[in-house]
Amino acid sequence: MTAPSKQAYVPFVSVANMMKLVLYVGLERVLTDLCAEIEDDFRRWGEFDKTPRVASHSDVGVIELMPTSDGETYGFKYVNGHPGNMKNGLQTVTAFGLLADVQTGYPILVSEMTLLTALRTAATSAMAAKWLAPKNARVMALIGNGAQAEFQALAFKAICGIEEVRFYDIDPAATAKCLENLKGSGIRLIACATAEAAIEGAQIITTVTADKQYATILSDNMVGTGVHINGVGGDCPGKTELHRDILLRSSIFVEYPPQTRVEGEIQALDPDHPVTELWQVITGVAAGRTAAAEVTLFDSVGFAIEDFAALRYVHGKVAQTGFCEQLDMIADPDDPRDLFGMLLRSA
Amino acid sequence: MTAPSKQAYVPFVSVANMMKLVLYVGLERVLTDLCAEIEDDFRRWGEFDKTPRVASHSDVGVIELMPTSDGETYGFKYVNGHPGNMKNGLQTVTAFGLLADVQTGYPILVSEMTLLTALRTAATSAMAAKWLAPKNARVMALIGNGAQAEFQALAFKAICGIEEVRFYDIDPAATAKCLENLKGSGIRLIACATAEAAIEGAQIITTVTADKQYATILSDNMVGTGVHINGVGGDCPGKTELHRDILLRSSIFVEYPPQTRVEGEIQALDPDHPVTELWQVITGVAAGRTAAAEVTLFDSVGFAIEDFAALRYVHGKVAQTGFCEQLDMIADPDDPRDLFGMLLRSA
Repeated sequence: MTAPSKQAYVPFVSVANMMKLVLYVGLERVLTDLCAEIEDDFRRWGEFDKTPRVASHSDVGVIELMPTSDGETYGFKYVNGHPGNMKNGLQTVTAFGLLADVQTGYPILVSEMTLLTALRTAATSAMAAKWLAPKNARVMALIGNGAQAEFQALAFKAICGIEEVRFYDIDPAATAKCLENLKGSGIRLIACATAEAAIEGAQIITTVTADKQYATILSDNMVGTGVHINGVGGDCPGKTELHRDILLRSSIFVEYPPQTRVEGEIQALDPDHPVTELWQVITGVAAGRTAAAEVTLFDSVGFAIEDFAALRYVHGKVAQTGFCEQLDMIADPDDPRDLFGMLLRSA
Repeated sequence: MTAPSKQAYVPFVSVANMMKLVLYVGLERVLTDLCAEIEDDFRRWGEFDKTPRVASHSDVGVIELMPTSDGETYGFKYVNGHPGNMKNGLQTVTAFGLLADVQTGYPILVSEMTLLTALRTAATSAMAAKWLAPKNARVMALIGNGAQAEFQALAFKAICGIEEVRFYDIDPAATAKCLENLKGSGIRLIACATAEAAIEGAQIITTVTADKQYATILSDNMVGTGVHINGVGGDCPGKTELHRDILLRSSIFVEYPPQTRVEGEIQALDPDHPVTELWQVITGVAAGRTAAAEVTLFDSVGFAIEDFAALRYVHGKVAQTGFCEQLDMIADPDDPRDLFGMLLRSA
């Protein structure tokens, strides 16, 4: 049996290699880089093939495919969301992704994306806040202290200049974990006993809880004028975090309306309730925050272009650092019509 | 750095391991097994989540994601179709796929599917012919002698009792390749100089060409009464093989109408032109062939449930044989909320 050809191999970034890569580049630097990459791709929004993700729902969770293409490179992510996983010792969200060459359809990268999704979600949140939050915001409330929490805190420090993060979770052990993990981060870390206490003095409120049900993490009276809400946890049908009254007095910014209207906080609103697309703010087509007293809401559900930007970033870094393995994933006979012969001759 | 947990690993079937597995089980046996597995899943059609595949088209080809779920297991395939690849020494179609546990969303198998797609496509074609072709069909014309051809020939031998295959391709080298590869197969192999000659005496006509354009591989006068046409190559918008007049006098059988109306031969017909779903024939809900003089057409485009059945088959065989590697693809911290801590401690 002859060895597979070079075409047969696809670079694969394992979890171990992703961790090596992130630590090699530096965590805050990766978040800042990802923010820049995602912003660049949001600036050229019109170049992308866009489609709402393809979701397969069950009683316990959802499995989604998120494809996009810029005409040169195609990318997709596989991602699940299973809020009940945690009590069984499993991740709520796991993911992997792929990039391929549009000219040939051949994959050029396969990568773990559980860590990368956490990083790109945090980078996207901070990017939105950079455009929408009050200038000189220095304090953020962080409600929901699970797997996403530290990434959010660090991204808001690195990208928005947040100096103090006020943590709240229904489970104090989750908060304690965050404080332990971030103790050397340079962020002022405050553990709070209630969501109300966490919000006190915060210019930015991030909600990132995992329950798959209509929850009210924030009620209307908790949200003062002028704050920016970064709503991350409401991200599938039936899963929201904010009371409807908050939405009604907020300026709402979204990634991709056809997806967000089904999955985001705005599923609680009329289908024609006005929202602004974030890429329009970044390109100057639409206004972001227009008044100090305005409540801005980034109704984040996660969109394929963010994963695309993250995968392209990893692809570039892997080319520089070699933090990957080679997967024998593409059947590549010498004569492309002779797939059968390749099989026979492998005997 | 501690080693990844057992949860982190996903079994991966490389091209090399797929070839080992197929040769270990035996090629005709794999085709017969796949036919049975696909038929079983077509019998329980109603249990599946079904959606047309998600296609990303470009000037030179298409990249598609094909998901489905039976409520217990989720599967999807990534597949491209790039007719121009061959002249650059690349495969027209490459693919890989995944199975996941619906309860947790965790992947349970990643597999090459270039070979597996060739096998399942041939098995599906032969399954359809088993239900639709004239009884005692012994001769098949095989027009288009590329990467799919030998798999089709062998599947029709193993599953339908085809004894003679008559080959035609615009490139005689492709036909010569098929005759060489199949010389020990027990099939009577006839190379033909024209499509008309290939069709002579055939009860089954298989068309499996790759051009992405409206082509007329079969014109109306070439198709006599009573034959079964297995139309495999017409499988995306703008890519058809049969003259419209053939369609108008055929009983047409399809996999999943919402997909086939866009991608199959029937894209040339009115959107309400009557077709029968193959699963309905298998379950007895609808009739298959009802007269000896009837022209039956299986307008095959390939559907996600076929890939699902094939992946489940491979999953079972890999569990028995161990023909796989383990990919470190799932970030799995000891405390599922502590993804960040896992990253920190990996330093």
